[in-house]
Formats: sequence, C-alpha cells, structure tokens
Amino acid sequence: MNVDVYFSPEVVDAPSVEGRTAVVIDVIRATSCIVEAMANGARGIFPTILPEEAVKLASSLGREDTLLGGERRGLKIEGFDLGNSPREYSPEVVRGKQIVMSTTNGTRAFLAVEDAHRVVTASFLNLSAVVRTLEGAQNLVLVCAGRQNRFSMDDALCAGLLLRKLSEGSGLALAMVNDAGRAVLDMAEKYTPDEEFLRSTAAGRALEEIGMEGDLAFCAVLDRHSIVPEMRERRIGLVEGH
Amino acid sequence: MNVDVYFSPEVVDAPSVEGRTAVVIDVIRATSCIVEAMANGARGIFPTILPEEAVKLASSLGREDTLLGGERRGLKIEGFDLGNSPREYSPEVVRGKQIVMSTTNGTRAFLAVEDAHRVVTASFLNLSAVVRTLEGAQNLVLVCAGRQNRFSMDDALCAGLLLRKLSEGSGLALAMVNDAGRAVLDMAEKYTPDEEFLRSTAAGRALEEIGMEGDLAFCAVLDRHSIVPEMRERRIGLVEGH
Repeated sequence: MNVDVYFSPEVVDAPSVEGRTAVVIDVIRATSCIVEAMANGARGIFPTILPEEAVKLASSLGREDTLLGGERRGLKIEGFDLGNSPREYSPEVVRGKQIVMSTTNGTRAFLAVEDAHRVVTASFLNLSAVVRTLEGAQNLVLVCAGRQNRFSMDDALCAGLLLRKLSEGSGLALAMVNDAGRAVLDMAEKYTPDEEFLRSTAAGRALEEIGMEGDLAFCAVLDRHSIVPEMRERRIGLVEGH
Repeated sequence: MNVDVYFSPEVVDAPSVEGRTAVVIDVIRATSCIVEAMANGARGIFPTILPEEAVKLASSLGREDTLLGGERRGLKIEGFDLGNSPREYSPEVVRGKQIVMSTTNGTRAFLAVEDAHRVVTASFLNLSAVVRTLEGAQNLVLVCAGRQNRFSMDDALCAGLLLRKLSEGSGLALAMVNDAGRAVLDMAEKYTPDEEFLRSTAAGRALEEIGMEGDLAFCAVLDRHSIVPEMRERRIGLVEGH
C-alpha cells in the first residue's frame, strides 16, 4: 500500500490524487459535522468555498428542504441556518435535508481532492468504519484540512490512527509512506484521541476562546457512527456497497 | 518566547514574520551548502527563485568573482558552476567569491521571510551557533523549506532540535508554540540526527537515487561550524556582533 499524507489542502495538486482514494480529515470540526449530519439522516452535503456560493447553491437546490451551514472564525455565518458545531446537526434538524456547507478549512479540502478516484470523509466519530472501507485500497492520500493551510495536530493524529489501524491489517511498509505519514504514525504512538488532547491543540484552544469547548468532547468520541460519507460530483452522501 | 514552526514556505505570509526573527532550514541541502560556503570564505550568497534570474544577477554583480550555484531535481543546473552539494563549496572554490544560488526549495524559503526582523540560516552544521544567536529572541518563526512545499522530515527534526535546545535555556512554555512546534519537539525526542536518519527521509532517498548519497553524511554533522549566516536585503552574509 502506497500512502501519502498532506498537512494542508493547499499543497495537494491534481497529480497527487489522480487514480487514488482520498481521505479528507477535519476533526475540528467540518468532517465531524458531516459524519454526524449524515448519520442523523441528512440526504446529502455540498461543500463550497465561499458563503455567497453556498447561498446561491442553496437557492438553486430549493431553499425549503436545504439548510445552509458553515463558519467563519468558528462562528455561524450571518444568515445561515447552522454553524460548524456537530451538536447542531441533530436528527430533528437535519433529517431529510440537504446541507450546503462553507467552512474555512474543511470544505476546501474536499474540493482540493475532487479529482480522486474516491473521496471519503474521516473523523474520530467514524474512524473504524473508514479503516474498513479502505482495506484493500492500494493507493491512498490522506488530506488534513489544517488551519489556514497550516499543520493542525488534531487532523494529524486522526491521520496517524487511521494509518496505524490500516497497517495492522495490511502490513504497511514504511518505504511506501511519505515523510508526513511517518510523522503521523509517530503521533499515533504518543497521543490518545480524547477531549484533553483536542483541548491542547491550536484549533481546540480557538474553540474554547469562542465558548464552543463543548464540541471538543463531542468530536473526540471514537466510532460513534459506522458510516463513511463519500463525495461524488461535489455532493457528499452515503454510497451503497462500500 | 513565542515560536511558530512552518513546514513549507508557501504557508508563510508577511504578517507571520513581521517583526520576528526567522530561521530558514533546508538540511538537504541548501542551508547546509550556504553554511559550508560561508565558513569556507565565500563573501556572500544571493538566493534567487529562477535560474534565469540567477544568471542575470551574476552578470550584473560581475561574472569574474561570482559563482552560480543551484539545482533542479537535485542536479546542477546547466551552465552553472556548482550544484547543491555542500562538498562542492570547498575553500579552494568559494574563497572570496560571491555566489548566486537557485534551488528548488531552499532559496524560496529565504525569499518568503525577507520581511522578517532578522533572517538566519540553520542546518545541522551550525545548530549550536544558531541556538546561541537566538537566545533572548522573543518572537521566532522557524521555516522548513520542505520538498515541493511539503513536509520534510530532515528539516522538521532540525527545527525540533533547535527548539529543544532553546527551551533548555529559556524554559519555553508549550502554550507559546504552535501545533507544528509541538510536533517537531516530539521528533527531537525520538530521532537522532545522523546519516542513517537522513537516509530514511524522502529527501535522503531522492539523493541516493541520483548517486549523491555522500552528501548525507556531510549534512548530518552537528556543529561543524560556529557561524550563522544572515540575510539582509536579499544577500546572505556574516554579520558582525551577533
């Protein structure tokens, strides 16, 4: 198995994902939100970069059964229905709805890998399910959303735990992992994915500053769900047969 | 002390370096070359991005006492005097000369931080001297050149060793280090900077592939020199009084 890990979407180009399975990771908080929303019955999620795009797309999809979600500086965008806290994406709110999302880092990561063979959504909430769906994949790219295109410890640990679990199954050879992959495997040896760990990261501290620290315990739960949302043609949904 | 580490020059913008001391790290091989060249009596080094720029600048400086150095894909650029192997920058070759350099990653890193308060050159070859010159600095940015703007283990370990040595002196508080800084401190606990380590990195393996593995032992030597080349107005030289 050949695995490359990238610490920000900005360094990912088309050749680095072509023909490969891409895994998008934004623990705090976009991929946690997406997994939670899909598990709670949302019909599909459309990642967009700009809030204006999101508003336009929501109108064209039909505003009555579409929700607008997303954040800037961690807070809900003015005029949007939902922010970027997975706690908001409850069954009562999202069941049967389509959601158009615009977040600072996470939605960019999805669009950076849209030319990949497959695009799957990973977070602590669905880690084991992602590992299961990736078994047998020969060519993987793990893209950490990061923060403002920079290294983020929460995403890196999630990538490391994914890689470690995959290598336990398939006997992953170190020579087939790039330097960033080695670094995240080391992190998986050292750190435990819990609330305290998330609180120690830059993204976690930023959430505390805006009074959203309740999201940290939520995002730290391993395997709350066993689904793997996948993106096809810029729409994230649940795919039969994986 | 406030320290941010970045894993590639591409994510560094003017606000992230303004008023701060920037440390540029490209162990394999640009900063190793620069330290070696300056220790061996070069008068100054001019980093440039494109080979054409380098040729033009060398002409305007006066071609008779100027050398052109640099690489693409690890190999000497056609028409240049020197490649990017520190072994080439011997006293016989560089003494009294100015050198215009163009490398894939390293010279970009210098230009990315040119608005910093100070810009210093770090490698394993001058690690302790860099630590000494940084003592008392309040606001540091460590920029790893990386490879094609991506995470590179050799540069990250050098950043980690620098940070660890600095924190031993000043009692560096973890809350003042960004996530990348934490990650490189962890690497400094785990890895030893030697030839074997460099050979295990992606940059090291790439050098082996082009038959340049002799550079690895050379770049791995700690504290061969006690100089700290600094860049001022796009010229790297030795500064009195630091």
